[in-house]
Amino acid sequence: MAREHLSRQFDSELNVIREKLMEMGGRVEQMIGDAIRALVERDSRLAEKTIGWDDEINQLEMEIDEKCLEVLARRQPAACDLRFVTLALKIVTDLERIGDQCANIARRTRELNEEPPLKPYIDLPRMAQAASDMVREALDAFVAGDEVLAVKVCRKDQTVDDLNDQIQRELLTFMMEDTSTIPRAMRLNYIAKCLERIADHATNVAEMVIFMVKGKDIRHTAV
Amino acid sequence: MAREHLSRQFDSELNVIREKLMEMGGRVEQMIGDAIRALVERDSRLAEKTIGWDDEINQLEMEIDEKCLEVLARRQPAACDLRFVTLALKIVTDLERIGDQCANIARRTRELNEEPPLKPYIDLPRMAQAASDMVREALDAFVAGDEVLAVKVCRKDQTVDDLNDQIQRELLTFMMEDTSTIPRAMRLNYIAKCLERIADHATNVAEMVIFMVKGKDIRHTAV
Repeated sequence: MAREHLSRQFDSELNVIREKLMEMGGRVEQMIGDAIRALVERDSRLAEKTIGWDDEINQLEMEIDEKCLEVLARRQPAACDLRFVTLALKIVTDLERIGDQCANIARRTRELNEEPPLKPYIDLPRMAQAASDMVREALDAFVAGDEVLAVKVCRKDQTVDDLNDQIQRELLTFMMEDTSTIPRAMRLNYIAKCLERIADHATNVAEMVIFMVKGKDIRHTAV
Repeated sequence: MAREHLSRQFDSELNVIREKLMEMGGRVEQMIGDAIRALVERDSRLAEKTIGWDDEINQLEMEIDEKCLEVLARRQPAACDLRFVTLALKIVTDLERIGDQCANIARRTRELNEEPPLKPYIDLPRMAQAASDMVREALDAFVAGDEVLAVKVCRKDQTVDDLNDQIQRELLTFMMEDTSTIPRAMRLNYIAKCLERIADHATNVAEMVIFMVKGKDIRHTAV
């Protein structure tokens, strides 16, 4: 009976980690969306707000880290619970860095909004949507231990890379044709790179999920 | 007596983790140096070799991860040993991504070596040296639990950021004055960004070391 009580308590502690990670994931998803909306709608106040949210993300990172350490120290989990907690520790770092990237996008957006728009943005919002979907799906895959979904996330990284290549080519054309566009094009290039990095973080999470589910490491083999 | 034996065995397992991390750190340091040497000396074979080393880094990552999980499962470490192992798990991810950045630098270098040099490289090797020093010092700080050294690493990040700003400004001037330089300038811009990211990874490691030593989180406060 006491054992059952202990085990229920343990489950609820793992649930706290799970829920806090989902909360953090939801928050960074919103940051990605808002950072790009601030760019497309030229809304510098929204960019400002996005930068401010980074603090909340950092707070969540510290809370989850502490909770994981506590569970490791007091519960001494084994097998798949141990993998779950150690992966949570790694995933939280990726989520925090996604938050950093969103803040970086918002900073460049603030600068871009001071100048006339270079062009209507079509591919950047598409890229942001794909990256944001990848983050959500990678976390869903983690929580559900869903390997198939994780593999899907890894494959979607190619879509984001392709969009990035396309954006780079287009910006290059702008710069070559009219040097006055170079500073703006460089900022947009930077924003595309940030989105690419966000997708890379999501891919890293997905690869770790596959590792967790399979119990063996496929991170550095083709999926 | 049996207890003492167990404890010695535990220490030696922690030492394996420590040594493998140092080995991995030494390897990525060499990759940084070689990637930039391949650029400065226009040595595409060295660039090729650098890209190839990424596999070894990935192998080391998997080995260290497995070792950490094993120690957590079998030894159930407490207090500072627990912090050590969980930080090793996080640090190994940063080192692996530094390796990725070096491979990225080497790929752009290979492309740049196909074209005439844009300019003699002065600041990029400086930036690479600073980033490489930061990686080594961050790992030294981790192994020695040396908070003072870790704080020094965090501060050095500013030097790298300043060099990056300087390089960006210089490249912008090249591009504005002669559009034919744009594709090369964009590649050099990318390489500078990779070095900046390497320095960021080192800073992340150093911040985590301070957290480990102090037992509280200073990651998101000014140092």
